Amino acid sequence: MAQLMEDDVLQAFTTYAVIVILKMMLMAPLTSYHRFSGGAFANEEDVALKSAEDKKKFLRSHPDVERVRRCHQNDLENIIPFVVIGLLYALTGPDLSHALLHFRVFAGSRIFHSFAYLIPLPQPSRALSWMVGMAVTFSMAYSVLNTVLRL
Amino acid sequence: MAQLMEDDVLQAFTTYAVIVILKMMLMAPLTSYHRFSGGAFANEEDVALKSAEDKKKFLRSHPDVERVRRCHQNDLENIIPFVVIGLLYALTGPDLSHALLHFRVFAGSRIFHSFAYLIPLPQPSRALSWMVGMAVTFSMAYSVLNTVLRL
Amino acid sequence: MAQLMEDDVLQAFTTYAVIVILKMMLMAPLTSYHRFSGGAFANEEDVALKSAEDKKKFLRSHPDVERVRRCHQNDLENIIPFVVIGLLYALTGPDLSHALLHFRVFAGSRIFHSFAYLIPLPQPSRALSWMVGMAVTFSMAYSVLNTVLRL
Repeated sequence: MAQLMEDDVLQAFTTYAVIVILKMMLMAPLTSYHRFSGGAFANEEDVALKSAEDKKKFLRSHPDVERVRRCHQNDLENIIPFVVIGLLYALTGPDLSHALLHFRVFAGSRIFHSFAYLIPLPQPSRALSWMVGMAVTFSMAYSVLNTVLRL
Repeated sequence: MAQLMEDDVLQAFTTYAVIVILKMMLMAPLTSYHRFSGGAFANEEDVALKSAEDKKKFLRSHPDVERVRRCHQNDLENIIPFVVIGLLYALTGPDLSHALLHFRVFAGSRIFHSFAYLIPLPQPSRALSWMVGMAVTFSMAYSVLNTVLRL
Repeated sequence: MAQLMEDDVLQAFTTYAVIVILKMMLMAPLTSYHRFSGGAFANEEDVALKSAEDKKKFLRSHPDVERVRRCHQNDLENIIPFVVIGLLYALTGPDLSHALLHFRVFAGSRIFHSFAYLIPLPQPSRALSWMVGMAVTFSMAYSVLNTVLRL
């Protein structure tokens, strides 16, 4: 098995997969931050120490919290398909330079997408960065099905 | 590593995993389509070019958008477990015929599930297709734990 | 390929990955249970057999349903990163004892997290169990990037 991780493409995939998954995981503490700074919680036990009056006030949704949650959801919907298809793509033995191009463009597009969503930048910056990420994953999926197709 | 992808079962898994992930990814452009056709957006920057009056009107939820989003969420909750458990199942070296049966039934059930959710078809068509997909994943999980169990 | 699954660490990863994914999948029938017991559905076709008056009544959200759905979403946001990074971590060939420690603590923290969310237990039990799970995944990510870094 040690031989598997000596493969250049799999090493590159591993690096970028960990980077984009960590980026996605950062959305969770960011949600917590906005829940505390905005005073907007989802569960009664989260406001158990507040006075009865405050409890009602803090059990609400907040635009900043909802924005981070939408960004997190978009990450789930895009980064997980990249990771699954990227791993299978890496196992089909593509050129290292092609593979690195795919992985780098995807990671760059998703990091830019998060800034575009959270600052927020004017459209179509978010839409375009989302499309670039989708295009990378579609390109890898095409390459995989072109190499391995057993229905 | 090239040897790994010469395995029949892994080739079959790769084919069906890419197909169901692509199906899941199609939910995203479908959501966009309904956002534009129904005039229902989630972010202020998405309606920045509209008049002040229209901005309020277009920042809303829409039944068609919410339906696609629920379908997308159900895909995340079912297709990703299939992909994870399916990969581990493929690595335990099952019979090709058993594996193909699992993969084909799952892919069929999820494609049917999307039509049942989005047309929508009368219940219990959606519920049954969801159960078939769950049963396939449970069956593979049972097979994996039966072969490899190291607590 | 059979050789791959003879690796101790990959066997341990497989066992715990299947356990936490199955735990996550159990949230779906639990959501259904609360939808039926609480009479709270999301789709018109789900209440097609009810009388016109009941249809309106049953197309609503319910606190118990929403709580399970938040728990399910939290699983998606935490268990899937664990599975992805855990697989790559297992492929880097760590010590079996280190790997088992990571996998066991993660599985324990997520099972506790579900009870803390659904009973619910007073805070900070849920917050702490969430943090333990995040810490395990970060620790594996650090170990992976320390072994394999090819940008």
